[in-house]
Amino acid sequence: MSVRVYLDWNATAPPRPEARDAVLAAMDVLGNPSSVHGEGRAARRLMEEAREKVARLVGAEPRNVIFTSGGSEANALALTPAIEAGSDKAPRDRLLISAIEHPSVRSGGVFPATAVEEIPVSASGIVDIAALEQRLATLKAEGVCRPLVSLMHANNETGIIQPVAAVANIVHAANGLLHVDAVQTAGRISCDIAALGADLLTVSAHKLGGPKGAGAVILRSDTIHFSNPLIRGGGQERGQRAGTENVSGIAGFGAAAHAAARTMAADRASMSALRARLEDGLMAVSPDAVIFGILVERLPNTVLFAVPGIKAETALIALDLEGMAVSSGAACSSGKVAASHVLAAMGVEPALAQGAIRLSLGPTTTEVEIDAFLKAWMKLAKGLSKGLKERCGLAA
Amino acid sequence: MSVRVYLDWNATAPPRPEARDAVLAAMDVLGNPSSVHGEGRAARRLMEEAREKVARLVGAEPRNVIFTSGGSEANALALTPAIEAGSDKAPRDRLLISAIEHPSVRSGGVFPATAVEEIPVSASGIVDIAALEQRLATLKAEGVCRPLVSLMHANNETGIIQPVAAVANIVHAANGLLHVDAVQTAGRISCDIAALGADLLTVSAHKLGGPKGAGAVILRSDTIHFSNPLIRGGGQERGQRAGTENVSGIAGFGAAAHAAARTMAADRASMSALRARLEDGLMAVSPDAVIFGILVERLPNTVLFAVPGIKAETALIALDLEGMAVSSGAACSSGKVAASHVLAAMGVEPALAQGAIRLSLGPTTTEVEIDAFLKAWMKLAKGLSKGLKERCGLAA
Repeated sequence: MSVRVYLDWNATAPPRPEARDAVLAAMDVLGNPSSVHGEGRAARRLMEEAREKVARLVGAEPRNVIFTSGGSEANALALTPAIEAGSDKAPRDRLLISAIEHPSVRSGGVFPATAVEEIPVSASGIVDIAALEQRLATLKAEGVCRPLVSLMHANNETGIIQPVAAVANIVHAANGLLHVDAVQTAGRISCDIAALGADLLTVSAHKLGGPKGAGAVILRSDTIHFSNPLIRGGGQERGQRAGTENVSGIAGFGAAAHAAARTMAADRASMSALRARLEDGLMAVSPDAVIFGILVERLPNTVLFAVPGIKAETALIALDLEGMAVSSGAACSSGKVAASHVLAAMGVEPALAQGAIRLSLGPTTTEVEIDAFLKAWMKLAKGLSKGLKERCGLAA
Repeated sequence: MSVRVYLDWNATAPPRPEARDAVLAAMDVLGNPSSVHGEGRAARRLMEEAREKVARLVGAEPRNVIFTSGGSEANALALTPAIEAGSDKAPRDRLLISAIEHPSVRSGGVFPATAVEEIPVSASGIVDIAALEQRLATLKAEGVCRPLVSLMHANNETGIIQPVAAVANIVHAANGLLHVDAVQTAGRISCDIAALGADLLTVSAHKLGGPKGAGAVILRSDTIHFSNPLIRGGGQERGQRAGTENVSGIAGFGAAAHAAARTMAADRASMSALRARLEDGLMAVSPDAVIFGILVERLPNTVLFAVPGIKAETALIALDLEGMAVSSGAACSSGKVAASHVLAAMGVEPALAQGAIRLSLGPTTTEVEIDAFLKAWMKLAKGLSKGLKERCGLAA
């Protein structure tokens, strides 16, 4: 294989060396964390150390971290009517989600489809707070008085950061609970559960440099409790998630969370600088490129752009052949380039949305890689635009 | 730590070297299997190779393997009314389980508690086939005509093997589907999905020498389909289980399945011989020991025994101090020694059941380890029986 440039960190981040080492070391700790003997206690210790590190990353108490197999399971666990909050044991009676949530949130968890509603986003990709407020008031008038609201911290396709804390105030004033999918932000930007005002937070290991196959639902307080969790039987995770724990994956998650917290400021600065270079280069090559969300606050590592006349499907294949691993947006479907519900919700024309290409950077991304991408893009844009002109009978 | 003897393989098996190596290698394959670029395809390839190996272990088609985060999630996924079987799209209307199933099966998956029934087992620990047949006939007369039956292949506490193929015939004759929890048998004894007559099979990686955090539901045919799977959103696992896959865990699972298939006959012979030595030694030291299931077919690696007057809780701690990692039965609760529902279902007196100690061997267990255990047991039995006599005022 020729030299490869990996610019698809929002799909999955290459494991940090600390995470890799922790996975390896944990593979040699042979006990089941539920066993009472020395081997079992050693495995449990590894897991509890990881729990502390993950908790610290988001400012939570370790006992409020429920480890899962990843972000999708975490969302499926969190989105249930059966959430008890303090003395309020009655089921949540409606799920409100933004129109740009991840498919695992859009699936609605355990809520019946009829109890799930979407809140629109503006053309700039930010949830419509006024619409949410109005809808909550209407629901209250209709007798729906225990809503669960799910809003992502930053969108996986555009990187656009959502006004989570403001939404939290509104949700709490309406007697609601707020779930925040922080899969794309934890370990990248500050993601403090109290500052966000989240009652439930979803985090994934492999987006922040941990192994694939680990994640967590993190609770604001231990007064929040699932009365009918997704996977039941054993007493693991304080009865909230049964099954022998993925000890090595969890150990890697902890190590990655710890490393990410330590390098976050530097990573952020380096990614921001490289993204500016990337966006400047892109606009220079393709002055008609549209960068989605460029006017609002975004993750420091994400660029979603489209150039009229260039289809993402063609571009991705051509770029892959040039050694560039990039994406058309979400990687979470079965390898297909599907229409983006995120861009549709923002009112982007389908023809332009079909050209959306996502570049997502990571802490180890280099200037050399950015420049290599720009070179490949130049080649591709020239070729595609030549082909386009020929097909339209405009060839020089 | 002094020399340790690990005799708790039914709780979790130390990873096979092949599995450890596969996990490590997979940690360096950085793509998301859903990504279309080269990195993504490489990750997908790893996963598909593992799928073939796991399928081969149980005689299934690779496309019918649905990877999960482990046995408990697999059981939670499998036990749902929303199973379509061929042209029959109507929901399953009852769940029948044996009285000795794993807690994750006893939780009933997505079935409402009112739709779950237990079928008793005999005093020798084998499911009561006549009772099942009768119950299915009664249910049919009552209009319940699409039962799902769940029967484990071998019990985790006693090792007793269940008459799965015979039950399959009865279940199928009653228009039912059969789910088989083969967590304790896959990789240890022959576990062919067709020979068992199972429609759905649960397998766990870490019981057969793979990493913790991987498992699978394996379907008899691709005409069986979950119409409302547990974790939804992405199109992974043919739409049956969303979420970025635990690629390294799955790769380790595949490697372990392959290795287990290769060494199964030799492992079985070695474990059987060592268990005979262990049981002979136990009876010599404690002639009043009761070995549960000794008259029926058991897994070659498992001994569950009790000695009147010796409590498991005390014995486990004393044995742990002597370097012996053993268990009181199921390890899947939160480290507590709870009363065994398995022994209760077999009609074992609670006082005796409280003394149940499980020794479970593995392919690398040695004669030296067995003898070390017997020596530790002798010391403990002497001490405990001395203490018992003293407490009863019988001291010499």
